[in-house]
Amino acid sequence: MVSPLKVTIVEADPGRAALIEESLKRAGPCELSVVSDMTRLTAAIAVNRPDIVLIDLDNPSRDALEELTLASSPLDRPVALFVDQSDEGLAKMAIEAGVSAYVVDGLRADRITPILDAAVARFNLFRKMRVELNATKRALEERKTIDRAKGILMKAREIDEEAAYALLRRTAMDQGRKVIDVAAALVSTAGLLS
Amino acid sequence: MVSPLKVTIVEADPGRAALIEESLKRAGPCELSVVSDMTRLTAAIAVNRPDIVLIDLDNPSRDALEELTLASSPLDRPVALFVDQSDEGLAKMAIEAGVSAYVVDGLRADRITPILDAAVARFNLFRKMRVELNATKRALEERKTIDRAKGILMKAREIDEEAAYALLRRTAMDQGRKVIDVAAALVSTAGLLS
Repeated sequence: MVSPLKVTIVEADPGRAALIEESLKRAGPCELSVVSDMTRLTAAIAVNRPDIVLIDLDNPSRDALEELTLASSPLDRPVALFVDQSDEGLAKMAIEAGVSAYVVDGLRADRITPILDAAVARFNLFRKMRVELNATKRALEERKTIDRAKGILMKAREIDEEAAYALLRRTAMDQGRKVIDVAAALVSTAGLLS
Repeated sequence: MVSPLKVTIVEADPGRAALIEESLKRAGPCELSVVSDMTRLTAAIAVNRPDIVLIDLDNPSRDALEELTLASSPLDRPVALFVDQSDEGLAKMAIEAGVSAYVVDGLRADRITPILDAAVARFNLFRKMRVELNATKRALEERKTIDRAKGILMKAREIDEEAAYALLRRTAMDQGRKVIDVAAALVSTAGLLS
């Protein structure tokens, strides 16, 4: 990596915080910010804009997981969560919330870097899939909306499909808008006219 | 869990295999099968149909990762991979191949169960997304094909869109096929007729 890895760490225990900092610094260039509890995380993320968030929680609970999900936005950046103990329900909940690494009793200096590497890789893979899913869903919705708009025009003007699409396109060009926006406006207001 | 968890384990070291078996049995009801190397994995999976595959590799390499990806089909079932050492490239490669848990130097009796829980949760989350993505892509492709088929009919028969769709639908019903199959057949053969 050329630019230093920016890591924001949530760690209540100063000794463990020092251990994490040392181990990350040994592994390569990095910019670290440490906060002592979850209530300071949102502000720290806004200031530091980390590449990854590392959270060490000695006592995980449903409430703590909800709080960290809100504060860390695990769908926006990789979050690696270290807990001392866990049960099946908590692991599942953390992973479904989007946590990229869920590590039970594994906070040891030499293991942190490979865990963060894996968390970043997993986050990127997952994000790529989410982006593709959202783009495909949007394409499908847009197609449906344009089809509906064409149908409305074909009926109202007694024209064929090609002419209906050409009309949508010309209107969009004239108004400096996208075809989908004209189509959506037509679909949402067509009820008013009939 | 009501039914026992079926785990297939790849472990060359008999001592470590015993440790894994003991730790899984202590955690709850399970059916275990152990093979000593990757070449036996495909056959073991076919026979045992495991809920999860646990692979312990002391010396990971690109070749070993490719071999395990082929043998374990990590997109078809959760695979937890334990390695003794790693580098960033290998972690990324394993995760992109679909491995649900990539654990460096973490094979310790009391950590196996939470790792497998997390691997199953992650696999299910990922599979759900893949299923949704595939369904959305298919819906979009089907819509495009049906639109193209309607266009062909509208032109050839000089009918409107509704009539074209009705014709596709009636043909599908008469032939006991799906609308999309009739549309695809029409699109793929329409060139022959003109």
